[in-house]
Amino acid sequence: MAGDQKDQSRRVLLTGIRKAGRIARVDLAHDTGISAATVTTTTADLINEGLIEETPRSVSEAGQKRGRPRVDLKIRGQAHLVAGMKLSSHSISSVITDFEGMVLAEHDYPMRNIAFSPSDLTDHISQALQQVSAQAGIDQTNLSGLGIGMAGIIDGQNGFAYWSPTLTERNVAIRDMVSTQTGLNVFVDNDANLVAMAEQYFGHGRGISDFLVVTIESGVGMGVVLNNEVYRGARGCGAEFGHTKVHLDGALCRCGQRGCLEAYVADYALLREVSLGTDTIAGQDSAERLQILIDAAKNGDRTAETIINRAGRMFAMGLANLVNIFDPQLIILSGERMQFDFLYADDVIESIRRSTVQVDVPPPEVVIHKWGNMMWAMGAAAYAIEGVSKTAVRKGVEIAS
Amino acid sequence: MAGDQKDQSRRVLLTGIRKAGRIARVDLAHDTGISAATVTTTTADLINEGLIEETPRSVSEAGQKRGRPRVDLKIRGQAHLVAGMKLSSHSISSVITDFEGMVLAEHDYPMRNIAFSPSDLTDHISQALQQVSAQAGIDQTNLSGLGIGMAGIIDGQNGFAYWSPTLTERNVAIRDMVSTQTGLNVFVDNDANLVAMAEQYFGHGRGISDFLVVTIESGVGMGVVLNNEVYRGARGCGAEFGHTKVHLDGALCRCGQRGCLEAYVADYALLREVSLGTDTIAGQDSAERLQILIDAAKNGDRTAETIINRAGRMFAMGLANLVNIFDPQLIILSGERMQFDFLYADDVIESIRRSTVQVDVPPPEVVIHKWGNMMWAMGAAAYAIEGVSKTAVRKGVEIAS
Repeated sequence: MAGDQKDQSRRVLLTGIRKAGRIARVDLAHDTGISAATVTTTTADLINEGLIEETPRSVSEAGQKRGRPRVDLKIRGQAHLVAGMKLSSHSISSVITDFEGMVLAEHDYPMRNIAFSPSDLTDHISQALQQVSAQAGIDQTNLSGLGIGMAGIIDGQNGFAYWSPTLTERNVAIRDMVSTQTGLNVFVDNDANLVAMAEQYFGHGRGISDFLVVTIESGVGMGVVLNNEVYRGARGCGAEFGHTKVHLDGALCRCGQRGCLEAYVADYALLREVSLGTDTIAGQDSAERLQILIDAAKNGDRTAETIINRAGRMFAMGLANLVNIFDPQLIILSGERMQFDFLYADDVIESIRRSTVQVDVPPPEVVIHKWGNMMWAMGAAAYAIEGVSKTAVRKGVEIAS
Repeated sequence: MAGDQKDQSRRVLLTGIRKAGRIARVDLAHDTGISAATVTTTTADLINEGLIEETPRSVSEAGQKRGRPRVDLKIRGQAHLVAGMKLSSHSISSVITDFEGMVLAEHDYPMRNIAFSPSDLTDHISQALQQVSAQAGIDQTNLSGLGIGMAGIIDGQNGFAYWSPTLTERNVAIRDMVSTQTGLNVFVDNDANLVAMAEQYFGHGRGISDFLVVTIESGVGMGVVLNNEVYRGARGCGAEFGHTKVHLDGALCRCGQRGCLEAYVADYALLREVSLGTDTIAGQDSAERLQILIDAAKNGDRTAETIINRAGRMFAMGLANLVNIFDPQLIILSGERMQFDFLYADDVIESIRRSTVQVDVPPPEVVIHKWGNMMWAMGAAAYAIEGVSKTAVRKGVEIAS
């Protein structure tokens, strides 16, 4: 279908411009492999729609000696405003950015519970949206899109939550519910996929066509970028890592199955073992108890060491399997909590290398990238930017600057 | 780079024609998303180069009432002859096909050993090539390409064997050695990748954009097709499944590591357990001993059952992990040996389903496809056809018909 091809060119060119920041048409054609003629016509469309704009290149920058001044193309920040949200166990982290990804406001909306009914969660999202919009000094009707990242098995294509720890029900058409309530274009995906997108747009993944992001919070998530695209699988629920099995008939997982990676490395998995070894840390919250466990291991407590060591080795085994399967250029280990440092330890990384198929070329680079919920929200904003770019419904909103 | 884009269009169009068999230009444009203008110019080039040809469509077939007769495009079988080879532990299976994949000759070349020095293996390949060429009644200089599939960690891009059970040395530039000796364009890849390509060209994978092929012979192999391309990873050695770990510090594998899937399901893994349980089957060859083990399990021998059951459950666990990670449309279990039927048993397939993340949509289809070495060789021929299509060096060879 010719329409598909045109959409594809638009998308490749927009992404190329976004990645480059500022770029001349001739370089854009070179970088993307799209013909100069198509670059000319497509970028003219994009300028007309207000998604990109021309910007003069200074002579010194261009190193140009004569002829007419060259112009670069750049994303037009004012083209669209979007919101991005990360749903966590007790809060919603939100950002509002312009079309270039410049942050206008950040907001953290606290929630009392971990899981909600679909309508309660929709209400919370709606309130969080109002608050972050107010903080940015805009009306939420000025937003062109809302991206939402949430844990669980999410079909991003349809914004459908097969299962999420944030929801008390299965099979929720969460995108459509939020869209109806807010009146916005809504884009929902698995949160780890959106961390991958954040890395691709703003982080270590820029310019890398194939990489994996593994996230550790209360669960273990994964985002996979192959050939510059987030990989989602046939039913939209691929790239599942936390519930891959690392032990036949192994430890019981929250998901009801046995031997999942999460059942060995997540906080609850560690803490249920602590309760066997010692009862001195009862009564604290889970983060505090986990810290006590880790400190005990550092101080030579044998039981604590035994617990922590196995978690690290199971995590390394799971990562080594990913290296064998994907042979990626780069693995980004991404997590908010300093607590999980023991999973990023040198001996864990070394253990990954020892457990992969041995070939006489360097193994993939492993990068540790710690960041907070706001960067997850930035991934959701990037997803909204991508969604808005595809639909290309220009709302003609201008930011008062 | 505009050249890349042109190559890409050529390749997409050739593949589109190959898949369709016979197809009108207008339908080709529709199916591939390539503009009618590009289809016209590119197919004109391909006709000039002799890679494709026009063929009249009969009126009844086209259902056409008036106007000038429409023509279809098809691959021109006589354009090129290629050879495909599968290197096995004691033989080389070869085919010669035309550019449409029509088989002109099949040949099986026996070898005394399992592993060879690079120069000895090159000699064997060269002799196998002479024999299959003689059988086809052609001179091997009439071949445009030779595709070779071999087990191990192979960088297909560079035809480089990091490690192969068929070679006594590591890091062998096997493509270049065979090319020098035979004077042909040679294309070498991991054999399971080429089974995936055979499924894509000739088998269950036709028209499926994303699928996995898992092969079981003496080892466990995998080929991954994503977005219509065989996935190879950053260093060319991705899609490794047999050496993913299914047990921390588990059974010793031939590769020197512990807990690899192969160390639980390959023939040697089963037979080393047999030697603990009973010595009544010593002195037979491994295929016979394996059959005795399987028969014993069927007849209720407890030790044999214990051995076979664990292999099946470990295999299911590994496959379930692949489903979680890739969420493919289709998994093809492909193997030559009827002996491994126990791994394809209904309870194994059911166990895969129970071990994947539970969502309320149907799981990926699992298809069992048994075939012999000649079909692996066909995959190698398909690889050669693809390689020749890319290089598009027309040798002007015509088959005497």
